[in-house]
Amino acid sequence: MPVSASSTSQGLENSRVPPVRVYIPLGDRSYPILIGNDLLGDAGSYDAVPSAASALIVTNTTVAPLYAQALQQAIAGRYRRVDVLALPDGEAHKNWETLNLIFDALLGHGSDRKTVLFALGGGVVGDMTGFAAAAYMRGVPFVQVPTTLLAQVDSSVGGKTAINHPLGKNMIGAFYQPQLVLCDLGTLATLPARELSAGLAEVIKYGPIHDMAFFAWIEENIDALVARDPAALAHAVKRSCEIKAFVVGQDEREAGLRAILNFGHTFGHAIESGLGYGEWLHGEAVGCGMVMAARLSQRLGGVDVAFVDRLTRLIERAGLPVVGPALGAERYLELMRIDKKSEGGEIRFVVIDKPGSAAVRNAPDAVVREVLAQCCAA
Amino acid sequence: MPVSASSTSQGLENSRVPPVRVYIPLGDRSYPILIGNDLLGDAGSYDAVPSAASALIVTNTTVAPLYAQALQQAIAGRYRRVDVLALPDGEAHKNWETLNLIFDALLGHGSDRKTVLFALGGGVVGDMTGFAAAAYMRGVPFVQVPTTLLAQVDSSVGGKTAINHPLGKNMIGAFYQPQLVLCDLGTLATLPARELSAGLAEVIKYGPIHDMAFFAWIEENIDALVARDPAALAHAVKRSCEIKAFVVGQDEREAGLRAILNFGHTFGHAIESGLGYGEWLHGEAVGCGMVMAARLSQRLGGVDVAFVDRLTRLIERAGLPVVGPALGAERYLELMRIDKKSEGGEIRFVVIDKPGSAAVRNAPDAVVREVLAQCCAA
Repeated sequence: MPVSASSTSQGLENSRVPPVRVYIPLGDRSYPILIGNDLLGDAGSYDAVPSAASALIVTNTTVAPLYAQALQQAIAGRYRRVDVLALPDGEAHKNWETLNLIFDALLGHGSDRKTVLFALGGGVVGDMTGFAAAAYMRGVPFVQVPTTLLAQVDSSVGGKTAINHPLGKNMIGAFYQPQLVLCDLGTLATLPARELSAGLAEVIKYGPIHDMAFFAWIEENIDALVARDPAALAHAVKRSCEIKAFVVGQDEREAGLRAILNFGHTFGHAIESGLGYGEWLHGEAVGCGMVMAARLSQRLGGVDVAFVDRLTRLIERAGLPVVGPALGAERYLELMRIDKKSEGGEIRFVVIDKPGSAAVRNAPDAVVREVLAQCCAA
Repeated sequence: MPVSASSTSQGLENSRVPPVRVYIPLGDRSYPILIGNDLLGDAGSYDAVPSAASALIVTNTTVAPLYAQALQQAIAGRYRRVDVLALPDGEAHKNWETLNLIFDALLGHGSDRKTVLFALGGGVVGDMTGFAAAAYMRGVPFVQVPTTLLAQVDSSVGGKTAINHPLGKNMIGAFYQPQLVLCDLGTLATLPARELSAGLAEVIKYGPIHDMAFFAWIEENIDALVARDPAALAHAVKRSCEIKAFVVGQDEREAGLRAILNFGHTFGHAIESGLGYGEWLHGEAVGCGMVMAARLSQRLGGVDVAFVDRLTRLIERAGLPVVGPALGAERYLELMRIDKKSEGGEIRFVVIDKPGSAAVRNAPDAVVREVLAQCCAA
């Protein structure tokens, strides 16, 4: 249940965290992530963003009443005209029809090649606005203003943009970097509890694949995170962005290393697609998918049962499902074969080689079937 | 009226031109253009193209019966599976619905991130296939096999890909470079006369903007070109590709110089969009648009009346229209304001500064109205 914006900023007033910057190092496509409180409505937050004749804020019908006006006022001095477009909310709308609403708005307003797009919302808004920015007139600048934990720690950072196709998630898109990512921690106060948990899935992810010290910190602070303690959230967002920046800086276009960020996502995408987009939140599917991927890692010899249990317990404490839906093993396998990591019909899984280190591997179908039998509802 | 493929290759047998290569110099995105006869059906032409589990040939219903089988056989050794998708023919189909047929086919065939797309056809097929390659799984390799003169000398080279939006031409797309452009001159023998003329518009374009010696050569050889003399066509394609390679190599993403390649296109796009896509061919609209842009250049002091008359005469001899349709000046201005070169509502025209040199300039609406009055049917 969203909390009103005014009660929010009051609630965080006493525990203000100074803003921090994390850089994504990509040569002439480098950009900063700003993390802090009260950034969204502060004109000074946007100093590095190009000015132009016009800007378009793309948001959704849930987020618009909370933050669109504050953002519009904050950037009003940089553009002669700032329009707001509120898309329908939810993963089920992450498709061409909704994307086209952005193009219709841009062309209807006479937007040109310098018009700046602002993505104000969660992962769906960010992914669609980013792809619209990549494709409109073959590329206009854009800014990510993520208002969900999942978008702040993962999807708004690194330039992956996409829409879904009925036959697969994120199948149509572009690698296209924003000019700036602005993580206003205050927006997390209005986030429904279910979406906060979904975001924690992507925070937890960074532990097994890269940083077991961070994993231990999350274990110690999981209750504070679920309770939205501002200092705990600030550290979780900052450390997640640092790890993502490191990985993306090494491998922008996912030729190798970057694939480890998809830990839990091969199983997770199958859950999302198999149940119908929007039934489970993306983060919920990833949380459960990590349990399955950890179990696969254990069967392939990378981790022991104690590690799988430890990860499962943390995912559960974050408020996430740990038992997969009963789609049937054959349906899971069919859905996973159209994952983007597949090659020549072979499913490629991100597995934990040892705690804190991940790799992409094939696995025999028989082993995957055993994992599905163990991890899914009957 | 298409000529059958068999009579074609016989007709060109005696005047075989040895294949030439032109390189597009773009660092790690560099690639060759191969220009010659009998290249399309020769497996050796594709040596530089990546192998993979599968390939998809995207073509249209006009070109498929002429060349799809030859291409499919030539590349059969490189892929376990080669599918063919024939799209409806024509600029009116250069839209999302048709583009989605490519994604449906790719996902329906279980294509992965290494699947190679082959664009076999004219500019519409090339632009759509290129954009599909840019967006499918955020980017798969593709090869241009242009079968029209326009595509061989212009649209297949340089990585501009796009679809149209009801409110504007090429508004949604990407800069995305192919692995190879294969210009088989033999395919020009099957080209309808009207399309050959449309292609000559883009050949002629390179003279006023960059190379008046080439312009003089075209004037001397225009009858041979219209009569499809193989040696004349070979030189026209080669020199056009060289000039395009030079310009694109300096400015891949059209930050500056590359805009000169749009000479005639601001007026031309307004004609195409104002009449409805497909009414005039793109090259016809560009031919007529060059007459209007030359007249504007003369009024702005860059060239004299004799130059405008000389260019007009050549465009006419190429079989192209030189009088604009009567859309009305206000409609022209409205359509040109949504051109991609516009900024803050100001139309930007490519004008000839002096013969052989072009620049992008604003022009007072009053002067543009005079040009339209002078160049359009009443």
